[in-house]
Amino acid sequence: MNNRNKLYLSGIIPPLVTPLLGKNEIDLAGLRNLIEHVIAGGVHGIFILGTTGEGPSLSTKVKQKAVKCACDAVNSRIPVLVGISDTSFQESIDLAVYAADCGADAVVLAPPYYFPSGQPELIEYLRHIAPRLPLPLILYNMPLMTKVDIAVETLCRAAEIKNVIGLKDSSGNMIRFHEYLTAMQNNTEFSLLMGPEELLAEAVMFGASGGIAGGANIWPELYVSLFDAAAVGDVVNVRLLQEKVFKLRKIYACGRFASSGIKGIKSALAILNICSDFMAEPFHAFHKPEREQVKKILSEINLIS
Amino acid sequence: MNNRNKLYLSGIIPPLVTPLLGKNEIDLAGLRNLIEHVIAGGVHGIFILGTTGEGPSLSTKVKQKAVKCACDAVNSRIPVLVGISDTSFQESIDLAVYAADCGADAVVLAPPYYFPSGQPELIEYLRHIAPRLPLPLILYNMPLMTKVDIAVETLCRAAEIKNVIGLKDSSGNMIRFHEYLTAMQNNTEFSLLMGPEELLAEAVMFGASGGIAGGANIWPELYVSLFDAAAVGDVVNVRLLQEKVFKLRKIYACGRFASSGIKGIKSALAILNICSDFMAEPFHAFHKPEREQVKKILSEINLIS
Amino acid sequence: MNNRNKLYLSGIIPPLVTPLLGKNEIDLAGLRNLIEHVIAGGVHGIFILGTTGEGPSLSTKVKQKAVKCACDAVNSRIPVLVGISDTSFQESIDLAVYAADCGADAVVLAPPYYFPSGQPELIEYLRHIAPRLPLPLILYNMPLMTKVDIAVETLCRAAEIKNVIGLKDSSGNMIRFHEYLTAMQNNTEFSLLMGPEELLAEAVMFGASGGIAGGANIWPELYVSLFDAAAVGDVVNVRLLQEKVFKLRKIYACGRFASSGIKGIKSALAILNICSDFMAEPFHAFHKPEREQVKKILSEINLIS
Amino acid sequence: MNNRNKLYLSGIIPPLVTPLLGKNEIDLAGLRNLIEHVIAGGVHGIFILGTTGEGPSLSTKVKQKAVKCACDAVNSRIPVLVGISDTSFQESIDLAVYAADCGADAVVLAPPYYFPSGQPELIEYLRHIAPRLPLPLILYNMPLMTKVDIAVETLCRAAEIKNVIGLKDSSGNMIRFHEYLTAMQNNTEFSLLMGPEELLAEAVMFGASGGIAGGANIWPELYVSLFDAAAVGDVVNVRLLQEKVFKLRKIYACGRFASSGIKGIKSALAILNICSDFMAEPFHAFHKPEREQVKKILSEINLIS
Repeated sequence: MNNRNKLYLSGIIPPLVTPLLGKNEIDLAGLRNLIEHVIAGGVHGIFILGTTGEGPSLSTKVKQKAVKCACDAVNSRIPVLVGISDTSFQESIDLAVYAADCGADAVVLAPPYYFPSGQPELIEYLRHIAPRLPLPLILYNMPLMTKVDIAVETLCRAAEIKNVIGLKDSSGNMIRFHEYLTAMQNNTEFSLLMGPEELLAEAVMFGASGGIAGGANIWPELYVSLFDAAAVGDVVNVRLLQEKVFKLRKIYACGRFASSGIKGIKSALAILNICSDFMAEPFHAFHKPEREQVKKILSEINLIS
Repeated sequence: MNNRNKLYLSGIIPPLVTPLLGKNEIDLAGLRNLIEHVIAGGVHGIFILGTTGEGPSLSTKVKQKAVKCACDAVNSRIPVLVGISDTSFQESIDLAVYAADCGADAVVLAPPYYFPSGQPELIEYLRHIAPRLPLPLILYNMPLMTKVDIAVETLCRAAEIKNVIGLKDSSGNMIRFHEYLTAMQNNTEFSLLMGPEELLAEAVMFGASGGIAGGANIWPELYVSLFDAAAVGDVVNVRLLQEKVFKLRKIYACGRFASSGIKGIKSALAILNICSDFMAEPFHAFHKPEREQVKKILSEINLIS
Repeated sequence: MNNRNKLYLSGIIPPLVTPLLGKNEIDLAGLRNLIEHVIAGGVHGIFILGTTGEGPSLSTKVKQKAVKCACDAVNSRIPVLVGISDTSFQESIDLAVYAADCGADAVVLAPPYYFPSGQPELIEYLRHIAPRLPLPLILYNMPLMTKVDIAVETLCRAAEIKNVIGLKDSSGNMIRFHEYLTAMQNNTEFSLLMGPEELLAEAVMFGASGGIAGGANIWPELYVSLFDAAAVGDVVNVRLLQEKVFKLRKIYACGRFASSGIKGIKSALAILNICSDFMAEPFHAFHKPEREQVKKILSEINLIS
Repeated sequence: MNNRNKLYLSGIIPPLVTPLLGKNEIDLAGLRNLIEHVIAGGVHGIFILGTTGEGPSLSTKVKQKAVKCACDAVNSRIPVLVGISDTSFQESIDLAVYAADCGADAVVLAPPYYFPSGQPELIEYLRHIAPRLPLPLILYNMPLMTKVDIAVETLCRAAEIKNVIGLKDSSGNMIRFHEYLTAMQNNTEFSLLMGPEELLAEAVMFGASGGIAGGANIWPELYVSLFDAAAVGDVVNVRLLQEKVFKLRKIYACGRFASSGIKGIKSALAILNICSDFMAEPFHAFHKPEREQVKKILSEINLIS
């Protein structure tokens, strides 16, 4: 069992989709393809079973298969982060133990997402669960899904827990991200990771250690280059690269509803022959009209001809 | 396996709390006590593993134990409804199959509560999952937790699915409940059940078949009497009884945060020596000051001396 | 100047639309027609310049003309309530003084609706403004527009202010309306008035003194009958009459957007030849397709043949 | 009358508070002091009667006095922008005409803030009002107050209206601000101005023409320097200066409620002997404890000793 408490995460860590063949059946070949695709693109880690990975929609068995497959496929080339968010305390722990056994490097945990907790309840929960996890822990702020927004004060207290090593912020609230950065500026071992790729560059320019950019499933090199430019404060290149990001992200708006982003990524990956676009319930793959839009966008950014 | 498709639910069906002895350990004796307590109070069914039952916070094992224990203890005296809401399609089905095997009478299902679905996605999901469930299905509208509000049109379409027999509405939106009632008024086999006990009486006066009143864990007779008075349009008695409901529900406001209601019920049940007040993570039982407030309220409504 | 501090309001008090001929021109003949129409229908008062009256959209001059015209036309047959909600303290007072001079009976005031106030700020504001108003004051809870929800505790404190005589609640939150009723149950001089007509009957059955039903612009008799049935607890008749209310209110859903309700009422009144359907900016009258829908609904409820 | 249709705004344009001596009495000397203070600090324009200026809380008379005083005091040294947001179409126009007569350079207009409009309603409203305004028009996106969020598509259409010359975005939604930037990137005459000062630097680095920073009331030089550093992509200096911004903005959090920001600025200005801290209703100046906190923060950033 991996029981390191420390790990500094930086760079681009794509939140991988979970390729599926059916409602309860993983596409293992597709997952391996995807991993090779992003490693070839220069990413600095992978994050599986997050929101983009449809983690909460998968059965325990499918989650375990994804963890095992990803750890084996990566084979220690880059860190593997495993999403263990669950409404059940015990199920989160069980998956973390399994992930450690498979050789994963860290776990990522959002607040339990059925009942919204108050901030004192949340910090108590974190103090209870963290010591039971055999891996370093990255907090995951995702208020749109969890209905709980991690307060700056809560982050400060959580950062004092031994194996809490970072925070991924997917709130899209850039003002508060600056507050996180300010609060953590003297804690150089703590990783602050930006969720939304639209804010990756500025987050990094102001001190974030990296980003969990969904678009890096599709075009990992672009996000790695953007990270590199931002890390050295090269504003001119940042703006050029970010223009491409804003072209690519039109893929996420091809459907209606909150699910459109994940459907768009899976659709693009299927078009690129990387993996299946099958979606876990309650969602279903794009139909032809949306798929044609995705194709058009991929063509505009020269990922297909 | 119970494969009836039809069941008409009416009256008071308390959403039972799940008594616990520890983070992952059920209080079986407490659950049996609670069941006898509510049956003695005249309730017309029980609903386990719902929101009040902390269903989403429990591990699969604890859920199974709760289902088995409840079915055995009830022993067919009244219908047993089992909450199977989950973010994973497969886990919901697996629990429904287990519940049917134990002899439960129906399952209750809220929309998957991590990713919010659009209404067309929701209806597609329901059409996929319903035929895989071996029991009659009651829909559960709980937008505060699921971020999805079941539209009137969606209810109409869902009611056409073979084994969908009812809806529990916990939105607290009384205007829309009237719309549900209007939409279903010619479907006399369909059960519309009111969640919030504050709206039980008027819901029943306008045609609801019953209510899933949390307070009936504590004082089942009160809610049964209120239902009876409302069912015959006895407005005078309804108002007298409802005054008591509004006194009892002060218990739910002893704590802060959304969890205060369940903590209050468990605290009251512990004071009444019915079961433990241990809470599943991420929550924790009331401390002494809140518990003293609960005692005071129980005393004011003459449930303790 | 009318300086009574007390007035008990009960029954149906329609929130009159403000008939207009142009962007900044009132339809005085239409307003007089409308007033005769609702008085003939048996209403117990009128409320002008509220939300349905597009009060906030009108210039000071148009508001003054509406007040003068309404007071003259009513000629003391029934109480006239004047909406004075404004973001400016002084403008609210000035309109109240004008209304008193014209012979109005009471003013209706929502919290200032640009900056949302905290509850302590709100109570302080009410304590400052109430003594400057020459008429009895009805509070107006309209959180959808004002972003401030009047707490039960705030209502209790406000009710202690000398000339505060009632509350109109347009929140649609029936649970909290029961809390208002409970809090005010020993204050028999205080009027609690329900805004949404869908909740009028149950509000009255549980102790509200009346309702500000928008549909009473169109069909005042229906709402007066519904009030009468509810006031005596005649549940059977309440349900029959309420069915008609739910048919009429389809008129409010003919358009998209929050403005659809007012547009629907004005459209219906124009079809009934009572007044113009011109809307104040930023809104504009229904176009033909929506107007045809309104006609169809009016025909279904036999208001036109 | 100034009837230029074009004006390119860039740099720091503080949203001035409106100094008051009483509920309906402006502090003209204080306003003149404040204007000299910010001009001495190098700002590129001023914006009066906005949110920070408590515009909606002031009577028409006080607004007119503020406009006259500001135009006279500035005396064409820098552009004067006047907030004309109102729920009444006519009142907005009347104030714009008055502002033009006084020599103001542009008007700033948020959507009418009582009834929320749909996007098509909003664009229709803008097409109606813009030609009636005698000055260039800057749109003002302030969804927290107006409940309407200006969509990218709406901005594109509005930018085609002759005298619409810019947008101030106070939503705090940085992702959407990037979308605005992308949509307007070929319209080099259009000014995109960032509201929240926390996002000023990155907005400018990515192409915004300036910012309406509230803190520039207090310390104009800081924001001017930050703008200058951002405009040339000097990330190192941006970060140093932004640290100071984040220290200053603690002033806004000394109180509770949404009003805390404006109270904080007025309190700081009173401590700096620039103007009175009297607040328009429904708000009231900080009491001693909050004022002491403001002093402490001013001292920490060396604005007082």
